[in-house]
Amino acid sequence: MAERIETDVVVVGAGLAGLSAAQALVAAGRDVVVVEARDRVGGRVVNRELDHGVVVEMGGQWIGPTQNRIARLAADLGVETFPTFNDGDNILRFGETQGRYKGAIPRINPVVLADIGRAQARFDKLARRVPLEAPWSAAQAEQWDSQTFETWIRRNCRTSKGKDLLRLYSAAVFAAEPADYSLLHALFYTNSGGGVDRLTGTADGAQQDRFVGGSQRIPLLMADELGARVRLAQPVRRITDRGAGVTVLTDQLELEARAVVVAIPPTLAGRLVYEPALPPWRDQLTQAVPAGAVIKCNVVYETPFWREDGLTGQATGNEGPVKITFDNSPPSGVRGVMLAFLEGAHARRAARMTPAERREAVLGSLVRYFGPQAAKPLDFQELDWSAEEWTRGCYGAHLPTGVWTQYGPALREPVGCIHWAGTETATVWNGYMDGALQSGDRAAAEVLQCLSIRPEES
Amino acid sequence: MAERIETDVVVVGAGLAGLSAAQALVAAGRDVVVVEARDRVGGRVVNRELDHGVVVEMGGQWIGPTQNRIARLAADLGVETFPTFNDGDNILRFGETQGRYKGAIPRINPVVLADIGRAQARFDKLARRVPLEAPWSAAQAEQWDSQTFETWIRRNCRTSKGKDLLRLYSAAVFAAEPADYSLLHALFYTNSGGGVDRLTGTADGAQQDRFVGGSQRIPLLMADELGARVRLAQPVRRITDRGAGVTVLTDQLELEARAVVVAIPPTLAGRLVYEPALPPWRDQLTQAVPAGAVIKCNVVYETPFWREDGLTGQATGNEGPVKITFDNSPPSGVRGVMLAFLEGAHARRAARMTPAERREAVLGSLVRYFGPQAAKPLDFQELDWSAEEWTRGCYGAHLPTGVWTQYGPALREPVGCIHWAGTETATVWNGYMDGALQSGDRAAAEVLQCLSIRPEES
Repeated sequence: MAERIETDVVVVGAGLAGLSAAQALVAAGRDVVVVEARDRVGGRVVNRELDHGVVVEMGGQWIGPTQNRIARLAADLGVETFPTFNDGDNILRFGETQGRYKGAIPRINPVVLADIGRAQARFDKLARRVPLEAPWSAAQAEQWDSQTFETWIRRNCRTSKGKDLLRLYSAAVFAAEPADYSLLHALFYTNSGGGVDRLTGTADGAQQDRFVGGSQRIPLLMADELGARVRLAQPVRRITDRGAGVTVLTDQLELEARAVVVAIPPTLAGRLVYEPALPPWRDQLTQAVPAGAVIKCNVVYETPFWREDGLTGQATGNEGPVKITFDNSPPSGVRGVMLAFLEGAHARRAARMTPAERREAVLGSLVRYFGPQAAKPLDFQELDWSAEEWTRGCYGAHLPTGVWTQYGPALREPVGCIHWAGTETATVWNGYMDGALQSGDRAAAEVLQCLSIRPEES
Repeated sequence: MAERIETDVVVVGAGLAGLSAAQALVAAGRDVVVVEARDRVGGRVVNRELDHGVVVEMGGQWIGPTQNRIARLAADLGVETFPTFNDGDNILRFGETQGRYKGAIPRINPVVLADIGRAQARFDKLARRVPLEAPWSAAQAEQWDSQTFETWIRRNCRTSKGKDLLRLYSAAVFAAEPADYSLLHALFYTNSGGGVDRLTGTADGAQQDRFVGGSQRIPLLMADELGARVRLAQPVRRITDRGAGVTVLTDQLELEARAVVVAIPPTLAGRLVYEPALPPWRDQLTQAVPAGAVIKCNVVYETPFWREDGLTGQATGNEGPVKITFDNSPPSGVRGVMLAFLEGAHARRAARMTPAERREAVLGSLVRYFGPQAAKPLDFQELDWSAEEWTRGCYGAHLPTGVWTQYGPALREPVGCIHWAGTETATVWNGYMDGALQSGDRAAAEVLQCLSIRPEES
């Protein structure tokens, strides 16, 4: 027999979006229950504790300038930040040729540099023309949404290295190939995060700082404040809209509420059973909003040996399978941690490997970037987010061609008493932790507005 | 308490794919249970009986040359065919200009005719280069899969009417906009159905003939033969792969079997709960394979009045909302039925209208094509397939950019004891009733092979 609970609002998902919605609702004096499928909170934000007190993050981890929502929250919760290690040279590799450079601009062939510079300037300029609240209303929305980002790259870069650098942008920022989503989506997302440099940068960029103790401390502390309102290991099976309210069903709980905030990725939101069935525009939206593909690897060494070579640990290469790395060592300095991303097509291919094959492939890349010392780590931690039943892909969703213009409004539009949150619904820092928190605030405000209009059930 | 049933194979879905799989398994001496979510069989094939014994089909309905699998089956079942009404002139409308023509080639500006002729020839030629068993292995697969069909149209047609004619091809054949899917998918699907003329044609094409009594007679008769093996109103909630077999759970049934054939559209297959969770390549595939959008309208008049004007009833126009029509009158001649399709973006927009607004919009189009007599039907029957909880879009799925090349093999590849059927998994006549039947045969053969290798459970 299901335990029956009455509350004002049910929140589905205890990631940052759901937790921020719950906090806002509680602050407004409402009763809330948060139901979470996993046996932990944080969603795509998760720490892993290793030997010697080393904490690595297997999901979202950085904070950068203009991410004010998460900065304020972290300060309130007493979670401190420290700079991502960024002293020395970065590595850029094309095929067998590897170079070192300082700062944002790689030392490469000036023809390529001019090519990529021109393309980036043009791309950033177009991005600023996408209204964040309504990308489908951009003057050229139809045209941008009917072609892939890859098509745009081929037309707007002349050099093959220039094209590859934009493809690396796609891997690093979207965890997807530029053929996977529309130019309109590429532009929206870029504008949402403040431009290419902001999104890709360490100093002054989205990778600027890290959280002491790991980013998951934030959702963990939020959940602490919510206390018994958060119910773990409760995958939601069904949401029934009774007109004057909703019933949310898990395997053990039957929750009666006046409204529900569904704060899970769109592709998972589309899998719940809804009664009555959702309208076609919402259902066809969630059919068409797949998640990116990432396997995040934290590779632990005795020391951050690359620092002795004058390297930041940030490497980028066009051949993969590891296309992006960062120094992810703990602030204590007790170990060296190299963060290696498998993204997009490389993540998809690597998903079919055995763990041993994948480890070998990742270490092979690291040896090419950083030398033979990279071959023998003390520990190798990986997480394939596409294999996670309650996420099914990272960092976030990307919108293929035709989706923003035909279904965009359905991303946030409530259906009866059902409201939608999650970083994919954010206007600013869409796909990031900051966007997730903002989306929770927005959904909570919607619900409060809605509850204040509709009479209480008797 | 759930009723517990043991059987050899469970088939999920009593559409043509599931029923053909079940028939093949029964013919091979296996025990089978077919579980169907709806209270009827046929899936995307459904009759509606109107006054005066008029039967209209609200889903798949035609049969054409080379659709040998369904032709043979219909003959076996004693379901006869008759030709789609095709005597007279067709209508082609661009904006306010309407023309009439006979046969396949419209009487339009010779510059446009040359343009579309060249583009179609080039397109058909590329289509023949796509291997139907493995579209991702085409020599140019990467390039074709990284751009939309719309991008190809813009590059390969010079005239705006030529472009519009290819967009009409997309609406008529894919029920989607050419920006919704990749060029590789457009080419695969076209090759799967034997080329543009075969797919779009009435005489010698996919719309050539109809079934006496309506196409649903076929699944109804198949289900009759299967008898009590078919269990209606049993939406599957969960599939557990126990290694040596599977457990399939509905709200009332617990089915234990050695294998399961999931014969529902990919986007619905992706929503079931699987234990263990499906591998990432399969899950990310179903995240990215949306269905097209169709609202099919059968508009009933006293007589097929267009015939008196020397018209076939087949009209095509670039402005919509109705872009494709057919004479769908019953062979008895007792009434005139005009079939009007709302497809792709027009279906998506019309889904948000009230029924009265939609009816007005559809009749408005019909009046423009066929004159004022079209304004006052006796009956107006419509079905929005995207609103159907157990279909969620028609005719079939389309694969957006990047999907065939990154996930194609996962469409048919079994996962443990779970096998996949449905017209989306077909190599020949993918998306059609014939492909659905073939996919059921293929899945049944896979299961039989599998059962013959693995030992019985003790």
